[in-house]
Amino acid sequence: MVGRAQLDDADRRLGCAVRRRLRGRISAPDDEGTGMMTALVGIDCGQSGSRSRIVIDGETVSESQGRPVYTHGSLEPQLARIIDEAVADVEAPELTVAVGSSGLSDEVSAEMVLSLVVSPAVRGIILAHDSVTSYLGALGPEPGAVVAAGTGVVTLAVGARKVARVDGWGYLFGDAGSGYWIGRRAIDSVLRAYDGRGPATDLTDRVLAEFPDLSKLYLEVQADPQKVSRVARYARDVAELAGSDPVATAISHDAGRALSESVAAGLRRVSAEPDAPVARIGNVFLSEALRDAFDESLRNAAPDAVLVENPGASLDGAVRLAALPEGSPLAGSVTSAGR
Amino acid sequence: MVGRAQLDDADRRLGCAVRRRLRGRISAPDDEGTGMMTALVGIDCGQSGSRSRIVIDGETVSESQGRPVYTHGSLEPQLARIIDEAVADVEAPELTVAVGSSGLSDEVSAEMVLSLVVSPAVRGIILAHDSVTSYLGALGPEPGAVVAAGTGVVTLAVGARKVARVDGWGYLFGDAGSGYWIGRRAIDSVLRAYDGRGPATDLTDRVLAEFPDLSKLYLEVQADPQKVSRVARYARDVAELAGSDPVATAISHDAGRALSESVAAGLRRVSAEPDAPVARIGNVFLSEALRDAFDESLRNAAPDAVLVENPGASLDGAVRLAALPEGSPLAGSVTSAGR
Repeated sequence: MVGRAQLDDADRRLGCAVRRRLRGRISAPDDEGTGMMTALVGIDCGQSGSRSRIVIDGETVSESQGRPVYTHGSLEPQLARIIDEAVADVEAPELTVAVGSSGLSDEVSAEMVLSLVVSPAVRGIILAHDSVTSYLGALGPEPGAVVAAGTGVVTLAVGARKVARVDGWGYLFGDAGSGYWIGRRAIDSVLRAYDGRGPATDLTDRVLAEFPDLSKLYLEVQADPQKVSRVARYARDVAELAGSDPVATAISHDAGRALSESVAAGLRRVSAEPDAPVARIGNVFLSEALRDAFDESLRNAAPDAVLVENPGASLDGAVRLAALPEGSPLAGSVTSAGR
Repeated sequence: MVGRAQLDDADRRLGCAVRRRLRGRISAPDDEGTGMMTALVGIDCGQSGSRSRIVIDGETVSESQGRPVYTHGSLEPQLARIIDEAVADVEAPELTVAVGSSGLSDEVSAEMVLSLVVSPAVRGIILAHDSVTSYLGALGPEPGAVVAAGTGVVTLAVGARKVARVDGWGYLFGDAGSGYWIGRRAIDSVLRAYDGRGPATDLTDRVLAEFPDLSKLYLEVQADPQKVSRVARYARDVAELAGSDPVATAISHDAGRALSESVAAGLRRVSAEPDAPVARIGNVFLSEALRDAFDESLRNAAPDAVLVENPGASLDGAVRLAALPEGSPLAGSVTSAGR
């Protein structure tokens, strides 16, 4: 885990770099012949942290990391604070901020977020659920399906006219195949082995390293405000042990299949073309066992779908939000405000 | 749900009844020939509420309901408050309070709880995990196994020398077959049907009655401090629909099997006799489909185990805590303090 102090330090260094670049640009009037500088800040807000990117005249000048959003709390003040921190060191006179965020619902008001942003340079904000920015980052505005699996998971399918969001229902009920889901299964399996309800597993040693007394694990995790990301961290252990431990293998296979079911459901709902592109993004897919299970399961459900390798990230998609074509079925999922 | 005002009213009426009974006893010196009045308050604290019983000279004089315990918070002040409220209207000079509670760990200090109790009449307290009081209520101090499934679930098996607790690992990881577990499966199934990932289910209408917009359900429940009992309430819908809806039937069967696995693991761990008594208690077993699945699964795992019908409740067990034989393997699971 990256400590707060390290992040602050990284932020500060990146901030200085941005300031230098921006000063250079501001002192060069009529840059690109328009006399106007287009400064855009793209932000991707997730439950484990946020990332932001400063783009000047289409060129990335810096990236930095920031605090996470807590989807169980009110989102507007959290987004406003993340935006203020992301733009703190940008000395541009006018900024547009495009944000993709976990937990964003129709109720979240772009006007409200903008009214809570302190920085006067922020003139406009564009908000979308992180499923939309994940999609745009991976496939741009073209039809297809994107499954983004990190701490949580969400699948978005886009057809010629329709958009379908699948799962993304949070840690309590859904997020099938997500890092949290995998971590929860890992801990559940360790506790089953401890109880004598389930087979022994090498995952036990990994969990014991953090919780020497397994009988107290649940009380400690329940009381932790960061419980979701804390549980999700065990997805890495599951990936590492998937080649040798049958319990870790089974969890990885089930997660891959669950993620593929979400994609197949999304493609059906938007009446996608058989050869629609499908992108699978997020750290969860770093697991080879999980990725193989996903690919095999998807081949059964949608044999002609085209897997896109090395797709762009949701932060790329946040930056693309600002240029979304008006006729895109995704345009209805985006909200904005200006001042 | 019973409203706070109703509870207060019920408490007041019961309190008056207790006061009358106690006055009658106090004004009859040398009652039962000892000149001493033995006043015991048994309390059963769960995540959906607590119940208390006043016992004078072995006779129940009143019962009342109180607030729940939140296992994600510090337990000592919660228990002290529940004790103070339970004894508020008891006009006995000396009281012993015996408490069985959800979420109790070795770290919870009986001394600390007693020091936080305001009522001077409380001279001694006895604390045990609610698995212990469930056990004592159902089977008394004899060897066997008890599975108690309400909002949460815990199984306790007692052998000649050993005690084994199985599951009871809270809403995040375990409590397999509990009301919460069943309610979570119900909501998960409804969201799968909504997404097009799973079959249609009659559970959808039940969930829609509380959450007209299913896409916002997860945010609303995540933000609710009472989320665990709120989700657990859907166990009743699952029970009602288990005879007609295949999804509800499958959830009930899986829950019954999960509960039986916990019992079988417990019996193995304490090297129980083949004909050990097994009691299944708690509202979850009101579901016929679930109970049948449990019984069938247990017959396969432990064919000679004897199912105990109509066992006593955990509140009975809380009262029995005070008379636990010293040699009982359960004695090690009980902690007490006096002043």
